Amino acid sequence: MAKKDNNIPETGITISKDEDFSGWYSELLYKADLADIRYNVKGFLVYRPWATITIKRMYRKYEELLEKNDHLPLIMPTVIPESNFKREAKHVEGFAPEVFWISEVGSEGEKLTERLALRPTSETALYPMYSYWIRSHNDLPFKRYQSCQVFRYEGKMTRPFFRAREFHWIEAHNVFATMKEAEEQVKEDMQMTYQMLQDEFCIPIIFFERPQWDKFSGAEKTFAADALMGSGKVLQLPSTHLLGQNFSKPFNVSFINEEGEKEYGYQTCYGPAISRIYGAMIAYLGDDKGLVLPFDLAPKQFVIIPILFKNKEEIVLKKANELFKKLKDKYDVELDDSEDSPGQKYYFWEMKGVPFRIEIGPRDIKKNQVIIVRRYDGKKYFVKENELDKILEELTSTYTKKLWKKAYVDFESEIEVCYEIDSAKEAIEKGKIVCCGFCSIDMEGYHCAEVVEKDIGGFIRGKRVGEEKHEFANCLVCGKPADCTVYIAKSY
Amino acid sequence: MAKKDNNIPETGITISKDEDFSGWYSELLYKADLADIRYNVKGFLVYRPWATITIKRMYRKYEELLEKNDHLPLIMPTVIPESNFKREAKHVEGFAPEVFWISEVGSEGEKLTERLALRPTSETALYPMYSYWIRSHNDLPFKRYQSCQVFRYEGKMTRPFFRAREFHWIEAHNVFATMKEAEEQVKEDMQMTYQMLQDEFCIPIIFFERPQWDKFSGAEKTFAADALMGSGKVLQLPSTHLLGQNFSKPFNVSFINEEGEKEYGYQTCYGPAISRIYGAMIAYLGDDKGLVLPFDLAPKQFVIIPILFKNKEEIVLKKANELFKKLKDKYDVELDDSEDSPGQKYYFWEMKGVPFRIEIGPRDIKKNQVIIVRRYDGKKYFVKENELDKILEELTSTYTKKLWKKAYVDFESEIEVCYEIDSAKEAIEKGKIVCCGFCSIDMEGYHCAEVVEKDIGGFIRGKRVGEEKHEFANCLVCGKPADCTVYIAKSY
Repeated sequence: MAKKDNNIPETGITISKDEDFSGWYSELLYKADLADIRYNVKGFLVYRPWATITIKRMYRKYEELLEKNDHLPLIMPTVIPESNFKREAKHVEGFAPEVFWISEVGSEGEKLTERLALRPTSETALYPMYSYWIRSHNDLPFKRYQSCQVFRYEGKMTRPFFRAREFHWIEAHNVFATMKEAEEQVKEDMQMTYQMLQDEFCIPIIFFERPQWDKFSGAEKTFAADALMGSGKVLQLPSTHLLGQNFSKPFNVSFINEEGEKEYGYQTCYGPAISRIYGAMIAYLGDDKGLVLPFDLAPKQFVIIPILFKNKEEIVLKKANELFKKLKDKYDVELDDSEDSPGQKYYFWEMKGVPFRIEIGPRDIKKNQVIIVRRYDGKKYFVKENELDKILEELTSTYTKKLWKKAYVDFESEIEVCYEIDSAKEAIEKGKIVCCGFCSIDMEGYHCAEVVEKDIGGFIRGKRVGEEKHEFANCLVCGKPADCTVYIAKSY
Repeated sequence: MAKKDNNIPETGITISKDEDFSGWYSELLYKADLADIRYNVKGFLVYRPWATITIKRMYRKYEELLEKNDHLPLIMPTVIPESNFKREAKHVEGFAPEVFWISEVGSEGEKLTERLALRPTSETALYPMYSYWIRSHNDLPFKRYQSCQVFRYEGKMTRPFFRAREFHWIEAHNVFATMKEAEEQVKEDMQMTYQMLQDEFCIPIIFFERPQWDKFSGAEKTFAADALMGSGKVLQLPSTHLLGQNFSKPFNVSFINEEGEKEYGYQTCYGPAISRIYGAMIAYLGDDKGLVLPFDLAPKQFVIIPILFKNKEEIVLKKANELFKKLKDKYDVELDDSEDSPGQKYYFWEMKGVPFRIEIGPRDIKKNQVIIVRRYDGKKYFVKENELDKILEELTSTYTKKLWKKAYVDFESEIEVCYEIDSAKEAIEKGKIVCCGFCSIDMEGYHCAEVVEKDIGGFIRGKRVGEEKHEFANCLVCGKPADCTVYIAKSY
């Protein structure tokens, strides 16, 4: 791995994350060589190697889990003919404003007979194929996924990885014989999300059933994970959608049931946006020294730094090389024997998020030890040579679990229960998440949601999944009888 | 893995590959669930799970090799602004006729201020970034790759996997301080190609330096692998291009050399098209029973088929399940306990290219044995239970090597040396590759190449890489002194 990948002085991160999150995030992306925003098409990002390696590993973990849960991979074309795209009315209404259209080809700009959409999502590409492939109840459940990129002409401000006009995701599209099975799939999707985002990527999340005005265009219901990003702000991460028969009817995704009758399938889709999750992960776990990464996802897991004193160089380098050779069969290891000072090296590799630094100096060699420093908490371990294997095993196998424990936020401690608009506004301003009574997350509650946005400065995130209790008598906004308990938060 | 993935009767392959290659190939794609050509945009293919799993594994092998050879991965945007695209004159001349243009966005079809090309290849996206990233000789060599799809509005007939308007490839783009290093990289690219295509994918290839009229648009020289597809026809597979300074000058990919002077980099690019290689592989290795795949690339490597006789079902199923559990930790295994007859199962899984079938019947249980049948040659092994581990190890570790030995074609035996147009024409008609003298593979030989195409019915593939000898006095076509030895073949 070339060290100075972007030709900048190695000063480390200079902006405090707490004081200026945006400044800190930009500096991190640039100095740790994660992304380049200078590509000359607005909203399109260049992913540099240090980010790409991690993103590929995140994909692999997600794909393995999907396959373990009986999803098979496929690859669809990137383009969708306009006529397909228009077959589900609400879907097209929601996505059409964001479509990039291919309408001409070749040097003379010959017009295509039908415009092609760069896929913003693949329902309208896939489901005509599903109608060929699914015939009988024996073909169900039918579970497929693809890893691909999608394109959306976002009007909102873009932020590298968080929101871009091209992003990288996985989309899973399933068909079932009954609504009940589709509902079970939604639960499995949420389960997979917790497993990946919390256990593997160390991002704390909560699932909400989104209000009807905030659901996926064409879905019956949308369940979305909100990541708790600190100071009360949330970020939407993977969402899973109960489509019911909304798409299976216009796209004729039907099957002959056990009684020999034609029936339309019950569908779900699930879309973890890997590039966005990556952004959330580095933003959430990073600190003022730079990147912090889960152990498996770090492009380099160890950096060995020989402490070179005059006349002792040879013996130290020999030892460092021995250790490098020992570790590299099992881990991703870097041996930094460049001419920088040890201090410069420490700063640099901390910024890159390498989970463990191993220091070896002449005094350590005398004592038959190495010093291991853990990235996320800076803890130092003086490890005797004969205990090295055991300690490494212990440190590496617990790194991500302990990082998760540190990163975990108790959702309850972020919440303030409110009964009035004024106190809700105050709570939101203090960086809290508001819990309150609300008239309805169906369309009749939309007006009250607008008030929440305007007067409280937050968004209705929806009903918390799995929360049965509902103790509010009245809607926070209109005072009518409250149909449900909802949560309000600021969001990215 | 759902068995009847496309709802067709399990009749196996009915068309002979030798008699009707196109018919055989189409039937294979359809019945083995590899691809679906019914997507309603011409030249855009749907890749089904059985092909997708193999293609992903091919990607992984290729990426590992590139990384081993010091290439780092990155991810570029899919779109290229028109102004970038036009910066190298010959490049735009070559690729412009094939570009899909994005020129409008949103529901109202708002015009973009600048048209965006769907990348047909990424030089003009990447090299402006390279000019930011590369500053000094210390940054060189600079080796990067990305795995992505590219889009070309092909006028020619498309054939699934072989030639499509969207295809999946890897592109590696490297910068060096000297032309000599760039030339060494071209050799490394060819070495990697042999290693992947022959050792891993079992496709015999030969490298040619292409004539100047057939090189990559903008390159100094192009070196391309031709696969020997049988009956004298060749198929172009990966090519590597010596770009020299043709792109580094217009894109300002420069560096400060050791003398402190600005110098333009020397570049190479390399583009193995994984989806095309997949097509070549299944077309080349497949037989009248269906798919044949290298061991590592088979989505299922073993299928266990219990032979069920009345009253013996329980004991046989128990044994089959035991074996399934034993194998599945190490291999991809299917246990086919469906109600189809053993014969139907044999046909089906042979068609799918599963390397080994294991049969277990009541008689085998009595004899403490299983029967293992190898896909590519149908050879049967009666294996005693206490020898199973040893034999499995032996059979699996040698499968691909032996398949390659069977698939290997001695290039020399396909060649006919010719001194006259008539004999060359005859040789091409007989399915041979012609070796002859030729005036020049620089542009002054172009007219003779046109004659070869028209009168002989083949194409000049170029000079064979590594072949030093040149014993022809005259050009086959014009009779002028021959500058080089070339090969002529029919091509896909």
